[in-house]
Amino acid sequence: MNVLFIGRFQPIHFGHMEVVKEFISKSQSFTLVIGSAQESHTMRNPFTAGERFGMIKKALADENIAKVDIVPIVDVNRYSVWVSHVESFIPPFDTVISNNPLTRQLFAERGYNVIEPKMYDRSRYSGEEIRRRIIENESWQDLVPKSVVRIIEAIEGTERIRACSMKVAGELNE
Amino acid sequence: MNVLFIGRFQPIHFGHMEVVKEFISKSQSFTLVIGSAQESHTMRNPFTAGERFGMIKKALADENIAKVDIVPIVDVNRYSVWVSHVESFIPPFDTVISNNPLTRQLFAERGYNVIEPKMYDRSRYSGEEIRRRIIENESWQDLVPKSVVRIIEAIEGTERIRACSMKVAGELNE
Amino acid sequence: MNVLFIGRFQPIHFGHMEVVKEFISKSQSFTLVIGSAQESHTMRNPFTAGERFGMIKKALADENIAKVDIVPIVDVNRYSVWVSHVESFIPPFDTVISNNPLTRQLFAERGYNVIEPKMYDRSRYSGEEIRRRIIENESWQDLVPKSVVRIIEAIEGTERIRACSMKVAGELNE
Amino acid sequence: MNVLFIGRFQPIHFGHMEVVKEFISKSQSFTLVIGSAQESHTMRNPFTAGERFGMIKKALADENIAKVDIVPIVDVNRYSVWVSHVESFIPPFDTVISNNPLTRQLFAERGYNVIEPKMYDRSRYSGEEIRRRIIENESWQDLVPKSVVRIIEAIEGTERIRACSMKVAGELNE
Amino acid sequence: MNVLFIGRFQPIHFGHMEVVKEFISKSQSFTLVIGSAQESHTMRNPFTAGERFGMIKKALADENIAKVDIVPIVDVNRYSVWVSHVESFIPPFDTVISNNPLTRQLFAERGYNVIEPKMYDRSRYSGEEIRRRIIENESWQDLVPKSVVRIIEAIEGTERIRACSMKVAGELNE
Amino acid sequence: MNVLFIGRFQPIHFGHMEVVKEFISKSQSFTLVIGSAQESHTMRNPFTAGERFGMIKKALADENIAKVDIVPIVDVNRYSVWVSHVESFIPPFDTVISNNPLTRQLFAERGYNVIEPKMYDRSRYSGEEIRRRIIENESWQDLVPKSVVRIIEAIEGTERIRACSMKVAGELNE
Repeated sequence: MNVLFIGRFQPIHFGHMEVVKEFISKSQSFTLVIGSAQESHTMRNPFTAGERFGMIKKALADENIAKVDIVPIVDVNRYSVWVSHVESFIPPFDTVISNNPLTRQLFAERGYNVIEPKMYDRSRYSGEEIRRRIIENESWQDLVPKSVVRIIEAIEGTERIRACSMKVAGELNE
Repeated sequence: MNVLFIGRFQPIHFGHMEVVKEFISKSQSFTLVIGSAQESHTMRNPFTAGERFGMIKKALADENIAKVDIVPIVDVNRYSVWVSHVESFIPPFDTVISNNPLTRQLFAERGYNVIEPKMYDRSRYSGEEIRRRIIENESWQDLVPKSVVRIIEAIEGTERIRACSMKVAGELNE
Repeated sequence: MNVLFIGRFQPIHFGHMEVVKEFISKSQSFTLVIGSAQESHTMRNPFTAGERFGMIKKALADENIAKVDIVPIVDVNRYSVWVSHVESFIPPFDTVISNNPLTRQLFAERGYNVIEPKMYDRSRYSGEEIRRRIIENESWQDLVPKSVVRIIEAIEGTERIRACSMKVAGELNE
Repeated sequence: MNVLFIGRFQPIHFGHMEVVKEFISKSQSFTLVIGSAQESHTMRNPFTAGERFGMIKKALADENIAKVDIVPIVDVNRYSVWVSHVESFIPPFDTVISNNPLTRQLFAERGYNVIEPKMYDRSRYSGEEIRRRIIENESWQDLVPKSVVRIIEAIEGTERIRACSMKVAGELNE
Repeated sequence: MNVLFIGRFQPIHFGHMEVVKEFISKSQSFTLVIGSAQESHTMRNPFTAGERFGMIKKALADENIAKVDIVPIVDVNRYSVWVSHVESFIPPFDTVISNNPLTRQLFAERGYNVIEPKMYDRSRYSGEEIRRRIIENESWQDLVPKSVVRIIEAIEGTERIRACSMKVAGELNE
Repeated sequence: MNVLFIGRFQPIHFGHMEVVKEFISKSQSFTLVIGSAQESHTMRNPFTAGERFGMIKKALADENIAKVDIVPIVDVNRYSVWVSHVESFIPPFDTVISNNPLTRQLFAERGYNVIEPKMYDRSRYSGEEIRRRIIENESWQDLVPKSVVRIIEAIEGTERIRACSMKVAGELNE
């Protein structure tokens, strides 16, 4: 099968890595799409697509996973054309792996095979939890590959996430 | 008078039908605008403009209401140009029927006659209530015209609304 | 068959009317899409979608053609999502009538039945020719329905077309 | 130094005026950017950029502050290009005054000097508080310059803010 | 009268300066709009809005013209909403000075007073001519204020205009 | 060095391949950007980004070139933010290879090292020439890698290019 795996990867963590490892050997091609590629510097999307690309590339290389195509794709805020939008940027695929019910609904309506991946320990392995731990100064480094820790530290990513999370004191500026 | 009636019609229900019936006979022309036409597959806007167009067309035909022009209009997220935006897509009108205070404010600032329609039983006849009933598996079919029920069932609309309403289990995908 | 007929209708002329008349009786539904609906006040697209809507509606009414749905659709400047874009705004269709090879190519790639209409006298019955005659003060009124002449005169459309066609004297303004 | 002072100014109040007064004498140039310039007619952004421009211009003139450049800038919803976006519209600057941590983070990442202004009495001098008082019919006039009161009254701004704040009764219209 | 003077000012030249001088004394307010503010680095629009803002500001200051408001406005590529778009960014005005027939047409359709300025020597005083002379290494410095020459030289503007004008050798890159 | 190589690759040809081969061994990282990724079905950009991605991937694999990252990037039609836009989607780079003077100008203004590649036989090895030969039914297959020929044939690409190149007979449709 030709697999499409879509996520925001803010940042990539061991939960994502398990999905890649489970499906890569069964797949003829494997495309990992960095969704919401236009987003950065928000609590929900702190890293640019380029930063996420660098993290994912290094994390896969460290595991000797070679055949993944990494493709950043900007959002199109119209669900009725979203499948066509994704199709236009990547080589053909037949199977979409996604944990998101709407993503599965949209691709299923267009005739794709959709797979809901097995759950790993989602109370720990989720981008939201990792960002929460960074903001609250808890330990997060064991939830992501070592190379991802190094890149986040090199770009002062924890400082950025905390800045994005701060309450604005008033209305003086936007 | 030449009437503009704006709504999202997610889906059209008997409350909307009453407004049409009340004003159609008093109007020289009657344009029904499907607003937020670019939206679909969300809890608030589950149906595409095309699906809504089909429902409205059939519901009006079943009541032998012939002279309504149905026009889908995409949003422009700038209220300062919104009236000009609407004006550019439809034949001239002088009267805007709307239950929404901002819509009335914007058209009134540009010199239009604005009318707040009488209230029907809004605890039942509202798109929000109908979608809530669908999600919670309560009875909703008596709130909309029969042809609307048939179309929603034909496109598996109740399944779609439930998929749009599901909590995303985590952050694996967007 | 369920027919989609796409054009810009700048303005609607007897060539368009012949296509409608030829296919309306063979069709279960007939949707006339006003393309490039966001355009106006240019040489190529002098009239707003709303003005074009008014002309088409009147021209069809004068011929007692009742069952045409008129739908203005804004452009999406990405051909790879254009078919999905059109599909999202109108009820289902299976057949696309178009004289434009790219339009036929795009719909054919998505599995639609496409029809190239017979040629009427295209040296006369084309929007481009009509606009040229207006600019050069030649006779154009016999190429379009009488009600279209009346609407263009009422909105001072010939003056507008001439203003849109004027060479800008320099670079003082944009 | 060449100062950039960014805000939404919905409306300009004495807190903003104090920032201008504190830094204007120390600055070679002082550019006041009206952010979210495309917004209006919402609870958070009731006034158009043009209305805000008029209020700011008059408030500064009444204090004989002459050398401020007022520049409305529309949002670009991509933080990764936002600094370049702002740079492209205004003359060069080196210092950004902002109370907003994200604004400071973004300009600091691009090498700008960023300053967090001293706090004035923010429980009173904030746009949010002023809009709240208008909605709830409390006294707000002493929080903004007199000329701003006059302009808001002339454009019936308090009525508009109240219309923007009203709950929509249902889903009949958008 | 309250004047709006719209141009692209690529760059501001003595033709523009004469218009300002002629109308400034007759005007209660005078707003100079830098149009196509989002454009730069093309043959037709080589300078950013910020660079143009700096040139205009200095050229007016050197002539002791103080009361002009300079406002960059991005294009909205829909002429039917363009007047509303401009209105939303600047204080009220009643008179539009423009050499461009379409600009005059659009503002006149909305009820504004429009003025076509007298012609200065347009074979020399036009942005197009100035850019042509720069590309072909002819003398251009006497067509614009001295401060504009200095700014263009400081930002290596002549090199940029020549780079923008070069034919692309092939299709290797975009 | 960390190389960025930007093109539209409509389609990839032996001229592009030579650039990759010349620089890949000297580079620590090599990112090939598919520009104008949103375009397709035009004479100048017949293939979608996904189709181009597939061709490039196969052409590189056939030459055993492994370490190239292929990244489609949509245009942002504002040159003042374009470098920031590109930076946001890909890992860091320091050197930009481009034949296009404007591309080199923009990256040089932001401090990048820019390289103009040596000329190969550009009368033959250019996308424009290849598309011209396809339209005029001349031999083009020896200008591109064999796998590219196979993909173009599989997607009926020559038919599409000819459809995109056809003159529209009139104005009946858009």
